[in-house]
Amino acid sequence: MPGNTFGKLFRFTSFGESHGPALGGVIDGCPAALELDFGFIQSELLRRNLDYPGSTSRKEPDEVEWLSGLSGAITLGTPLAFLIRNSKQQSDDYETLASVYRPSHADFTYEAKYGIRDHRGGGRASGRETVARVVAGSIAKLFLKSFGIFVEGAVTRIGPVCLSDSFKDIDFEKTRTNHLRLANPSKEEEILQLLQQTESEGDTLGGTVACRIRGVPPGLGEPVFDKLQAHLAKAVMSIGTAKSFEYGLGQAAAGMRGSVYNDIMKIEEGKVSFVTNHDGGIQGGISNGEDICFQVGFKPVPSVRIPQQMVSADGSTREIILAGRHDNCHVPRLVVIVEAMAALVIADHILLKRSSRML
Amino acid sequence: MPGNTFGKLFRFTSFGESHGPALGGVIDGCPAALELDFGFIQSELLRRNLDYPGSTSRKEPDEVEWLSGLSGAITLGTPLAFLIRNSKQQSDDYETLASVYRPSHADFTYEAKYGIRDHRGGGRASGRETVARVVAGSIAKLFLKSFGIFVEGAVTRIGPVCLSDSFKDIDFEKTRTNHLRLANPSKEEEILQLLQQTESEGDTLGGTVACRIRGVPPGLGEPVFDKLQAHLAKAVMSIGTAKSFEYGLGQAAAGMRGSVYNDIMKIEEGKVSFVTNHDGGIQGGISNGEDICFQVGFKPVPSVRIPQQMVSADGSTREIILAGRHDNCHVPRLVVIVEAMAALVIADHILLKRSSRML
Amino acid sequence: MPGNTFGKLFRFTSFGESHGPALGGVIDGCPAALELDFGFIQSELLRRNLDYPGSTSRKEPDEVEWLSGLSGAITLGTPLAFLIRNSKQQSDDYETLASVYRPSHADFTYEAKYGIRDHRGGGRASGRETVARVVAGSIAKLFLKSFGIFVEGAVTRIGPVCLSDSFKDIDFEKTRTNHLRLANPSKEEEILQLLQQTESEGDTLGGTVACRIRGVPPGLGEPVFDKLQAHLAKAVMSIGTAKSFEYGLGQAAAGMRGSVYNDIMKIEEGKVSFVTNHDGGIQGGISNGEDICFQVGFKPVPSVRIPQQMVSADGSTREIILAGRHDNCHVPRLVVIVEAMAALVIADHILLKRSSRML
Amino acid sequence: MPGNTFGKLFRFTSFGESHGPALGGVIDGCPAALELDFGFIQSELLRRNLDYPGSTSRKEPDEVEWLSGLSGAITLGTPLAFLIRNSKQQSDDYETLASVYRPSHADFTYEAKYGIRDHRGGGRASGRETVARVVAGSIAKLFLKSFGIFVEGAVTRIGPVCLSDSFKDIDFEKTRTNHLRLANPSKEEEILQLLQQTESEGDTLGGTVACRIRGVPPGLGEPVFDKLQAHLAKAVMSIGTAKSFEYGLGQAAAGMRGSVYNDIMKIEEGKVSFVTNHDGGIQGGISNGEDICFQVGFKPVPSVRIPQQMVSADGSTREIILAGRHDNCHVPRLVVIVEAMAALVIADHILLKRSSRML
Repeated sequence: MPGNTFGKLFRFTSFGESHGPALGGVIDGCPAALELDFGFIQSELLRRNLDYPGSTSRKEPDEVEWLSGLSGAITLGTPLAFLIRNSKQQSDDYETLASVYRPSHADFTYEAKYGIRDHRGGGRASGRETVARVVAGSIAKLFLKSFGIFVEGAVTRIGPVCLSDSFKDIDFEKTRTNHLRLANPSKEEEILQLLQQTESEGDTLGGTVACRIRGVPPGLGEPVFDKLQAHLAKAVMSIGTAKSFEYGLGQAAAGMRGSVYNDIMKIEEGKVSFVTNHDGGIQGGISNGEDICFQVGFKPVPSVRIPQQMVSADGSTREIILAGRHDNCHVPRLVVIVEAMAALVIADHILLKRSSRML
Repeated sequence: MPGNTFGKLFRFTSFGESHGPALGGVIDGCPAALELDFGFIQSELLRRNLDYPGSTSRKEPDEVEWLSGLSGAITLGTPLAFLIRNSKQQSDDYETLASVYRPSHADFTYEAKYGIRDHRGGGRASGRETVARVVAGSIAKLFLKSFGIFVEGAVTRIGPVCLSDSFKDIDFEKTRTNHLRLANPSKEEEILQLLQQTESEGDTLGGTVACRIRGVPPGLGEPVFDKLQAHLAKAVMSIGTAKSFEYGLGQAAAGMRGSVYNDIMKIEEGKVSFVTNHDGGIQGGISNGEDICFQVGFKPVPSVRIPQQMVSADGSTREIILAGRHDNCHVPRLVVIVEAMAALVIADHILLKRSSRML
Repeated sequence: MPGNTFGKLFRFTSFGESHGPALGGVIDGCPAALELDFGFIQSELLRRNLDYPGSTSRKEPDEVEWLSGLSGAITLGTPLAFLIRNSKQQSDDYETLASVYRPSHADFTYEAKYGIRDHRGGGRASGRETVARVVAGSIAKLFLKSFGIFVEGAVTRIGPVCLSDSFKDIDFEKTRTNHLRLANPSKEEEILQLLQQTESEGDTLGGTVACRIRGVPPGLGEPVFDKLQAHLAKAVMSIGTAKSFEYGLGQAAAGMRGSVYNDIMKIEEGKVSFVTNHDGGIQGGISNGEDICFQVGFKPVPSVRIPQQMVSADGSTREIILAGRHDNCHVPRLVVIVEAMAALVIADHILLKRSSRML
Repeated sequence: MPGNTFGKLFRFTSFGESHGPALGGVIDGCPAALELDFGFIQSELLRRNLDYPGSTSRKEPDEVEWLSGLSGAITLGTPLAFLIRNSKQQSDDYETLASVYRPSHADFTYEAKYGIRDHRGGGRASGRETVARVVAGSIAKLFLKSFGIFVEGAVTRIGPVCLSDSFKDIDFEKTRTNHLRLANPSKEEEILQLLQQTESEGDTLGGTVACRIRGVPPGLGEPVFDKLQAHLAKAVMSIGTAKSFEYGLGQAAAGMRGSVYNDIMKIEEGKVSFVTNHDGGIQGGISNGEDICFQVGFKPVPSVRIPQQMVSADGSTREIILAGRHDNCHVPRLVVIVEAMAALVIADHILLKRSSRML
């Protein structure tokens, strides 16, 4: 099974190169009679195209064309296919890169794998690929909403600036109204200056994104290999430039004692709940009803506008400054993509859960 | 697809409860004519049963019985099935837990999912499940060895004690001869004292495991959703108590600038290589020929021997001290399990790679 | 994905060679809290070991050992693993065949695929493999029974003797009490003589098996490629020696006019039903609530006790009479195997159906 | 896994409703550096749109638009996405059918499954869906051609007229130049009269299609459940109106004796071959190097222009004459579709075969 399909029952197949005619996808397994909110889907795409200092100058309209699976706005249970045309292709920018391997890009590895690659804008390895993820994720979100489940992300770090130390401190309500989705909106000014400064130097930044999923019922997840956290990890580690994943207390858990770490349960008014949520809403690979919380770290965008030594397919090396359109920091734009992948995972597990019992 | 199968072409299905008759698995897709080294497989199982202060008193012999797929020691290409009997069951220890949800265990969530659970020793959610992973992983290692690929892990942290700050500092050769597989063998005494002390207090510890994969050729990995790091993340996050995953520079990458982070390539004697390996051997989801390096963090074992408040299925709460057999720290035993999962991923991608080109 | 796993959500992985230590399987995805009836499962295995003139002298006890997934007789939702030991191996019979390709067997093709094969009794290609199918199928039947669904087969032809011309004529109630499961029990004497005669000549026979599935609700089946009939066809065509599949009116439909063929619907007491069932209970790949009816044709057992010219791996040819244990007609024993495969398909689609709607 | 994806490694996902904006698909796993012949693909689509008495008046231009996966005409190894617009929609024809269940159509069953359906022209259940199969199949054919493998079909029966009794009698060379792809071109006049006559009566016909695959190397096929014939059966039984499948001698095998049936092998000039090909090129589920031969039977088109009693969703019944565009016989148009599905199966198994051995 090749790698462009995600999920088992709520199943998304993606296609498209950065500078090809179109990107898009097919969602197979979305249950019948879900009402799509096209305005919401388009607004999610806008969140992927945020405008801030150093964000790419390639501002595609990214209009979704629906090809199948709908009766008006209602899903038929048949495959939902969609496409988004690539309108602002400036392939000329990339001609000089046809035989050059850009540092920390996928140029060398795609050629090692396929013996051929589309060098224009990174081809299939371009971040532009995520536009299809956002569309699929927004459908998953609409599906989840009908069950009272909500997926929300926030930027918790940009380069050297940390915006939050723990999930407990993040006010996701406030974050949602912040343009850059910063976990700590009061630092917006500082971040904007940082972005401006980095842009002026031609350099790039990474960062981290936190994500919280509210309203997940207990019982989602498939032991042993398909634990919920394993699928979430796979989902977000498949986003380009992701370098780390942690959930609940994450890395910090490694340094703690069990007596301090363990999530004690309590009963209030006949309802089970947890005193703490160090496990991040998942125990034994299965949701426990608490918020699911995880965090993803991203390396800096590899396309710096500073001379770098590069190797060519012909065996020569030379110093090059990359042309083309690139973000200097993609982290604020990644929030909606992280959310999309998380939503796809939870939607899939809602359907998988239906097989666990006799009726 | 239920969650007890791992891999696409090199495919492992696992079964067994902690206190049932047996654990085991079926490996379907191991190519024909691989010679199994049964001594090696048994030695890997011994690495999972390490003896150290606070390691569990359940020392099963863990003898593998082979049921199919072999002509002598040679694989036939047909399913390799094996089992390991559970010999030292002390189910009585668990009778008092039949209706109690232990903190930060899978008791509550399994019941939420299935409406029924095997409470004896955690049933399917027990760490004992990993015995089958080690057998499958050792076969994957034998397969990889024939291609010159080697998977090696090391303990980089136990509780508060860090044993290594970066991959570059780990001498995996030395580590291999260290009983506990510590990344810094000179700290063995300190670790042994820490384990002793924690055991005497009835408390437990977590830690981190680093893993390096040598000899991987460029070109392994399946974009977009099945990037090599996404599969590695899923693989190790499916191990019980895993809380975090990072590869290459990992979390630290989020704070760096692109101009500092990027892995510059060079050509020496006609051969491409990399000046640094911040990307951890994977770019665009595909291996680049450098060592693949990743790290996994584990929370402390949840079974402390200290009174904890627990909730029962009947809605009551009471303070309980857990009986039964438990490690106070499982991290040294996790090394071989992390290696096993990594080996399964690489073996699978060796086979998947064969489809990428015409011939 | 290698070929020893069947089904998507109700998922069966099989293992074992004819003369290896054991055969067995893992059923992953059987919902929790199904009560297994071990007596029923054993009785199904007996149906596979029917005794009649020319049936094989290898009468294994075929006792099932359960390895996991159960609390007493109740499924836990975790993998159900089982094995059946091979007790009556007479591998010596096969030594002369180590390098010979038996006509119309899998000897030559396994070697072409794997470069190696287990020649003892056909190895993995032996009909003995079906013992695991029967166990898995009997669990599927118990699952289906809880929904009021029943799978019943009958022998409709043995060699030149046809026992039924159409589904409508088969009295499955009567058939069930017939030792050989003949669709027309009054012909039992004729069949027994035919079997006796063929056996005495060292020759073999084929035949056909019909199968009816009662109680299937409308709505099972997954368009476009996973139509219910496509899965049934795959299921039974995977049984060794199967050469043909048809459902409903089958081959005869090709010669009919639409105006005669079409199944007209009616409404009686507010309930939709069909005047005829030419479509065999499936329309557009989805069940319509009528009985699902299909038929499978099998070629004669290839192991005749008559001299045949055979080719060896060394390039020589010679005339050989096959030794070893073989049925002269396997068709009566195939009934329970056909039923097993059909039951697995329907069980899978019961679970798949649960994803088709929002709730 | 929902049902709109076919294949494991050479993997085709299909989408589109008969009267929606477009149909199309995504092929994931086609190896890199295959050169597409767009003229050939278009010519295959023309074969699906054959013109003969009673063939549908809906003659779409069926122009393929390529969306991704190509550098010029060369595959990149990334997903090949394509679409075909629906240009001649006359949805009004279907308004009266919004709540009526047409006999032997998928109307009732889709509603039973999804609770909703696209009634316009059958929606997803329409035969128009096969246009995407033909495109995918033509790419598979181009892939196979590079290995010297060719897939060829022929009409062997239309309604009461049989055109061939056995594979041996079919001259596929001659057939290829026959407009209707009749196995016996000399009967073309008779067939044309039959089609004319049936059309004038408003009735419809079924028939059978034979298919031969030349040049398949020995060793393709995945035992146990994924035998080559099982995948071929699933492939063609997923085509709407297919009712029967047989390979090699097929149904006739059930009546034969083993001594007559068995395919004897011989050695000529050091090369193994077979005296007969009763097994149809597959033994033990694996190809043996002989031509792969199978046959598919199709019921008559259900859309007759004769009054039929129909049931409505509201519980009423009435007599209706169907409007809309329909073939009176679809069999000549099915040839290219059967070929397409067979080509997809063989292409998939070429890739699967690469995993069977160590190197």
